[in-house]
Amino acid sequence: MALWARVEYDGTDFFGFQIQAGERTVQGEIERAVEAITGTATRVTGAGRTDRGVHAVGQVIGFEVEWRHSLAELQQALNAVLADDVAILEMGPAPQGFHPRFSAISRSYRYTLLNRPWPSPLARRTAWHVTASLDVGRMAEASRCLVGTHDFAAFGQPPQGESTVRVVLRAEWQEQEPFLTFDIEANAFLYRMVRSLVGTLVLVGRGQMSTDEFKAILHSRDRSLVRQLAPAHGLCLMRVDYPEGVLQ
Amino acid sequence: MALWARVEYDGTDFFGFQIQAGERTVQGEIERAVEAITGTATRVTGAGRTDRGVHAVGQVIGFEVEWRHSLAELQQALNAVLADDVAILEMGPAPQGFHPRFSAISRSYRYTLLNRPWPSPLARRTAWHVTASLDVGRMAEASRCLVGTHDFAAFGQPPQGESTVRVVLRAEWQEQEPFLTFDIEANAFLYRMVRSLVGTLVLVGRGQMSTDEFKAILHSRDRSLVRQLAPAHGLCLMRVDYPEGVLQ
Repeated sequence: MALWARVEYDGTDFFGFQIQAGERTVQGEIERAVEAITGTATRVTGAGRTDRGVHAVGQVIGFEVEWRHSLAELQQALNAVLADDVAILEMGPAPQGFHPRFSAISRSYRYTLLNRPWPSPLARRTAWHVTASLDVGRMAEASRCLVGTHDFAAFGQPPQGESTVRVVLRAEWQEQEPFLTFDIEANAFLYRMVRSLVGTLVLVGRGQMSTDEFKAILHSRDRSLVRQLAPAHGLCLMRVDYPEGVLQ
Repeated sequence: MALWARVEYDGTDFFGFQIQAGERTVQGEIERAVEAITGTATRVTGAGRTDRGVHAVGQVIGFEVEWRHSLAELQQALNAVLADDVAILEMGPAPQGFHPRFSAISRSYRYTLLNRPWPSPLARRTAWHVTASLDVGRMAEASRCLVGTHDFAAFGQPPQGESTVRVVLRAEWQEQEPFLTFDIEANAFLYRMVRSLVGTLVLVGRGQMSTDEFKAILHSRDRSLVRQLAPAHGLCLMRVDYPEGVLQ
């Protein structure tokens, strides 16, 4: 039977989502668990191929299993054999033709910054520590130009040959001292798009780039103008949305 | 010169705050850093002797140093040599006779519960995972009897010979799905008092103990009635308060 599942993981000790020979990956860990429980090898596909070090609370995966008991029992069994840095939070039967990536209509990511002179031991795995004082109002103002349909070629690479046009539905900054969070939702993202955006927006927040210069980079479609990539560990895949009724 | 400092730490890899031969402790780690920077051994005292595994964002310490440069430079130097699971967030000159524990007028702790069937990889070091559904309204109701001056002998041990009477200023539950947090402030706490309270309040939240039974335990002053200690890793020392003007 075809299933979907919502997955949370702490990306710290994974070499990203996608399977790679000789490396510990989220996909590999889940495939290992499914095979251990069902006795049959399976291929797990994910909605987003998160980079090495990126976290998720709402990654969606799809996979096929042979299973005679309830889905609740399968979820229980999988969580029992999965390492403690990955967990299956929800699971259900996938409709005909479901693909976690191609069926999705939008993805939401959150990037977390720690903005104070001193590091945070408790947030060191989940927030990028920026010591220079950031003007969140300027960053929010610059981010407004991202909403809508744009060619984001300056901020990332597409899968081979694909268009670099994306539709951003939301791009918002919030301050919760000492943290700043950037929430961005789009139909899809280019490779490293959120980290390129945040790295560049931090220059705006430090006063090293104007909001007009930021807009000019967006419109340039020139990737060489992006000078700073925010580190992976501040990024988290929050949710993946599907047309109503697809995930039951 | 006598100094105070506010300290954050991830308690996961510490054997508690207080120095112990052969174990890695927060106090030992800070003493090592001070000696490395100033060249002279010092004794660090803390406001709260947090247990093994307990975290802090607002622990207050006191210590003596010989230092000819600015305090900002000392803080920078100490943070540079401290391991990444402990950081000094603030530092200042301590007034005559200051003692981080005896000068304090109150302490605030937060206990975090994860209340859902499945674990959270990202919160596994900072929240106690309780799978049974908890009624936070019942827990909040039971907690109300804690506020005020009471003999808390049922919920913990005092330092040798001391009274078990404590003044609780605040005891509040908040829900932020999937987390429940318990914030408690008191003039001082008995040994393991917060963990004993939370362990018992969880029985109330599960419907295994009435709010009247909870009150009866408080009034009994009988420690044998406390059957469940919440684990250390859900607990965090949030702040320590002093009379106005003491910490500059």
